[in-house]
Amino acid sequence: MLLIETKNELSSHLSSILGNKLLGLVPTMGALHEGHASLIKKAVSENDVVVVTIFVNPTQFDNKEDLKKYPKTLEADQQLIHGVSRAIIIFAPSVEEIYRNDVQSKSYDFGGLENVMEGAFRDEHFDGVGTIVSSLLKIVRPRRAYFGEKDFQQLQIIRKLVEIENLDVTIVGCPIVREANGLAMSSRNERLPKALRQKASFIYDTLLAAKEKFGTKSANTIEDWVTKQFDKHPAFKLEYISITDVERLLPVRKKQQNKKYRAFIAVYANEVRLIDNIALN
Amino acid sequence: MLLIETKNELSSHLSSILGNKLLGLVPTMGALHEGHASLIKKAVSENDVVVVTIFVNPTQFDNKEDLKKYPKTLEADQQLIHGVSRAIIIFAPSVEEIYRNDVQSKSYDFGGLENVMEGAFRDEHFDGVGTIVSSLLKIVRPRRAYFGEKDFQQLQIIRKLVEIENLDVTIVGCPIVREANGLAMSSRNERLPKALRQKASFIYDTLLAAKEKFGTKSANTIEDWVTKQFDKHPAFKLEYISITDVERLLPVRKKQQNKKYRAFIAVYANEVRLIDNIALN
Repeated sequence: MLLIETKNELSSHLSSILGNKLLGLVPTMGALHEGHASLIKKAVSENDVVVVTIFVNPTQFDNKEDLKKYPKTLEADQQLIHGVSRAIIIFAPSVEEIYRNDVQSKSYDFGGLENVMEGAFRDEHFDGVGTIVSSLLKIVRPRRAYFGEKDFQQLQIIRKLVEIENLDVTIVGCPIVREANGLAMSSRNERLPKALRQKASFIYDTLLAAKEKFGTKSANTIEDWVTKQFDKHPAFKLEYISITDVERLLPVRKKQQNKKYRAFIAVYANEVRLIDNIALN
Repeated sequence: MLLIETKNELSSHLSSILGNKLLGLVPTMGALHEGHASLIKKAVSENDVVVVTIFVNPTQFDNKEDLKKYPKTLEADQQLIHGVSRAIIIFAPSVEEIYRNDVQSKSYDFGGLENVMEGAFRDEHFDGVGTIVSSLLKIVRPRRAYFGEKDFQQLQIIRKLVEIENLDVTIVGCPIVREANGLAMSSRNERLPKALRQKASFIYDTLLAAKEKFGTKSANTIEDWVTKQFDKHPAFKLEYISITDVERLLPVRKKQQNKKYRAFIAVYANEVRLIDNIALN
């Protein structure tokens, strides 16, 4: 037993016996772009060892055609990761390695977070997300795990998952990375024809305008306004626009001073489904 | 860069490069008793290295007489800790080591948790608690820190502190340890005359009866009933009895199915202030 009286003595003793290394995890489905690169860079800057997982999780696709079409670009992904740091460990398991021969989701109660927006339009999507993220956190056991705010609802659900399962990990949310024209980075952007990809700046521009209006207009008024803007642009088919608080993701009845709000949007451009969101206050 | 495809390969590679040791912290003000011992045992069972701090924090005492009287028993404390494990590191800094020459609290906003019960009766107490716990967490940087549920309000405030300051630590609450007659273990119990200490079982007995009534009676009715019980026992002067939810520590208006409630009590026995609490559902 050791009795220590000064901070310096304590600190040097602890570092001599602990020698801990921090482990960070960046879970991805591959098809990496600059948005992923920003998560990986942040993980590298905050941890001693970083694992990037590449796994296209079948249980989070309600649309089996979408799963089939999901791009697989392992060679390019390795190069992008390599560009951030050569020390990164890539974990790219097979479906069998993760699910054995039982490719199914667990069923989760995320307190309602799973029923709105993406949850309403993508059946059992978040059960699939919860299942794979829970598995990966238990396999890798990182100190911190990094997720993009582009999938903000997913981010909040993963925070809830960690709470429900009492996992010993810090979930780090990272800002959306955008293309030069404002379109949120997404692996799906590659599937857009060039002209349409350029025009898709319209989605972010509309969110920025919604944010501008949030100081003076009601959430309903803004949602109606956004809907009308999309009615005028048939190249983009609006699936939903929803202004909610960031904690429960419930529609705004009356704005409260101490609450944070976001606008969430899902849009089809041709057959390609795009999502985006923005902090309003 | 390493590309790994199986869980086993990942797990053995990670453990070879990380070699992490978990650090646990048990902050105390010394005058250790079996309640502290249970915290230390839990910390030893869940971590590779444990630091017990012994520091009578001046900024959390509103009553300077109480601070002066606070028992200092470093020899006995070392023996108790030694009895749990010889490997434990004791950190017992001086007031100067922690505060330099500025013995003051930071001012915290714990979202209202600091204004009720102990906060209402002990001026700036929780600013002092927040200041010292924040310092110790930053000096020791543990993975987990252990606090007793006897100071349940303090426990919730520390959880809030960790949230506010975004500290990378898991706060572990541990059940109240009681003397044979039910009196909650406290360093202050030593100051009770033997007969009074025996009779002080009355406090816990009253909480148990309150819990019994909670199924059928309103919180107000129970609080009134407890007040009347104490009126009949002039050896004990009730400071407060308060039935609240466990999250916000606010008085119960209407019981809700999905909420957890506790009864909190503060009592003077002679000049000795005793607190206790109990889960009601």
